[in-house]
Amino acid sequence: MLNMSKTLPEIPAFDFAAAEAARSHQLTLTKPPGSLGRLEELAAFYAGARGRFPAAVPRRAELVVFAADHGVAVEGVSAYPQAVTPAMVANFRAGGAAVNVLARGADVAVTVVDIGVASAIPTLGPPPAGAPVGFVSARLRAGTGNLRREVAMSRAEAEAALAIGVEQAAAAVARGADVLVGGDMGIANTTASAALVCAFGGDDPGEIAGRGTGVDDDGLRRKAAVLRDALALHRPDRADPLGVLAALGGLEIAGLAGLMIGGAARRVPVIVDGFIAGAAALCALRLRPALRPFLLLSHVSAERGARRLCQLLGEPAPLFDLGLRLGEGTGGVLAVPLLRAAVALQVEMATFAGAAVPDRP
Amino acid sequence: MLNMSKTLPEIPAFDFAAAEAARSHQLTLTKPPGSLGRLEELAAFYAGARGRFPAAVPRRAELVVFAADHGVAVEGVSAYPQAVTPAMVANFRAGGAAVNVLARGADVAVTVVDIGVASAIPTLGPPPAGAPVGFVSARLRAGTGNLRREVAMSRAEAEAALAIGVEQAAAAVARGADVLVGGDMGIANTTASAALVCAFGGDDPGEIAGRGTGVDDDGLRRKAAVLRDALALHRPDRADPLGVLAALGGLEIAGLAGLMIGGAARRVPVIVDGFIAGAAALCALRLRPALRPFLLLSHVSAERGARRLCQLLGEPAPLFDLGLRLGEGTGGVLAVPLLRAAVALQVEMATFAGAAVPDRP
Repeated sequence: MLNMSKTLPEIPAFDFAAAEAARSHQLTLTKPPGSLGRLEELAAFYAGARGRFPAAVPRRAELVVFAADHGVAVEGVSAYPQAVTPAMVANFRAGGAAVNVLARGADVAVTVVDIGVASAIPTLGPPPAGAPVGFVSARLRAGTGNLRREVAMSRAEAEAALAIGVEQAAAAVARGADVLVGGDMGIANTTASAALVCAFGGDDPGEIAGRGTGVDDDGLRRKAAVLRDALALHRPDRADPLGVLAALGGLEIAGLAGLMIGGAARRVPVIVDGFIAGAAALCALRLRPALRPFLLLSHVSAERGARRLCQLLGEPAPLFDLGLRLGEGTGGVLAVPLLRAAVALQVEMATFAGAAVPDRP
Repeated sequence: MLNMSKTLPEIPAFDFAAAEAARSHQLTLTKPPGSLGRLEELAAFYAGARGRFPAAVPRRAELVVFAADHGVAVEGVSAYPQAVTPAMVANFRAGGAAVNVLARGADVAVTVVDIGVASAIPTLGPPPAGAPVGFVSARLRAGTGNLRREVAMSRAEAEAALAIGVEQAAAAVARGADVLVGGDMGIANTTASAALVCAFGGDDPGEIAGRGTGVDDDGLRRKAAVLRDALALHRPDRADPLGVLAALGGLEIAGLAGLMIGGAARRVPVIVDGFIAGAAALCALRLRPALRPFLLLSHVSAERGARRLCQLLGEPAPLFDLGLRLGEGTGGVLAVPLLRAAVALQVEMATFAGAAVPDRP
């Protein structure tokens, strides 16, 4: 195994004292104890991740969308052709994708990283004024290998993709990011993600393979068969998470895992959205188990294996379930206003004493 | 029965054609069909309520918090003293309550209406610069009667409270509101709301009474006993919703019901949040059954009877569940960015054709 300690930074200790201080402060605010539910947990999460209480309201949020192709697309596991990946990268750059719209509404900066698209990115118009979209060309290879027949990538390539994610986290933090969101784009990436869930969870592909962007019943059966072949071929060893990621993962999945580790290393929490980023979190957690308290699960995907994936990721569960299954980090961007609201409540609410509100006897 | 048609405006027809146009447009946008889940439904809801497609992104959102006291508070059904109600009205006016913080974050205007507080409102400082809070003094009486021993209010008072809600909706729409949120404040109002759920749903109080702001086991038993006595005394007749509201409801609950009907009458959708506003919606729907498609249920309260209440309100179910049980319209304000996002996606996303993204074969 490569020396991952060179690529991957260590995770600092989550500051449980700061989180506890946030919880104690909640009890002084003008509301019944616990009545703000998960917003109270979110404020404690943020204080613990940042390592201070009170923490200022997270102002700058950054979404990094990693895009890559998947060799397994040739197996007919997606409802859309592979040419969608570069076209959507162009769409992100021009500000026309769903996540661009959501990011503008939530005041979240967007960077798109080509970490392994298989063909040229077409050119579209510039994004709307005032909403620039960063673009990073960091293509490690033109899509992964077909995981049914060969490893998706070499261990060195997986490590390089992780390193790109770490770098992107560092760059965002250097720009002042207080919170990161990971997004994904890559035709056939629910297949790679399902393979990772099966590898780390020991599940049967028939229970995990889902419809992704909308394959029909035949496509779903093909997908499960491809996953069974891949697991039989690679015999993934959970004790070797880099090996599992290399054999069955994707370049954007490795980039996302690196982003999570890189953010947490700098005490910047990372929002994990949906099935692909969730599979990346699974890899990242096996590489750096201390990462978990720095991650905020935003939205449980409508993808079939998503609930099992959330179970593997452990508590706390995702914040909401709006039936999203688009990827791109869409649900993660929707969680940013909730995180800001949770911290603002801590900072701005009146106390029982300050507002002369009678407390319970 | 009073002639409700004088007090309560009629509800226009929900524009199913506009909603359908929104759904059709979704199919042209650069995403797999249905992959934006409930955000797609939300956009169709908004188009249908406003009666046009495309509808502009809802810019101005207004929260109206109705505050009132409850005679039943003397029965020891709340964890907090009645003096909290006026103190919290002062806190709202000064911008220090939870919902003020959330409203500032979500750019939602706030108006507080004293529709029946039992004692004088103390004076606190002004709200933060740039976030004025409207205040309307419209006190119909100093709290309701104790529903265990007498009607909460007369039919004429219930009708007057409904009319105040209708007027508040009209005033907000005249200020340019594109969407309304109803909020509540009133010590003991989960008891009145539970009484309404039992009256309209036929449920046993033991199944519906909850802990409200946090009563202990003894308080919970007292609450259920009070509800049983009230139902035995008033023998509510579901076919007479005004009578049920007068006997068992609250002034703020009637105000909320009026707000919903008044908003829908002007084709402005109303966000219904939690247990108290939900109970108000139950009354409003019995008075004006055509109202339902104009209502957006935001958050299912953690209060015990909340799921039964949602069942009585029917589909679509609330958008999220964050464990909130504070009232004030807190969850409703959190839904405003989601509604804006849903409509923005319709307006701003690229189409497959426009962005040259290959569609599925």
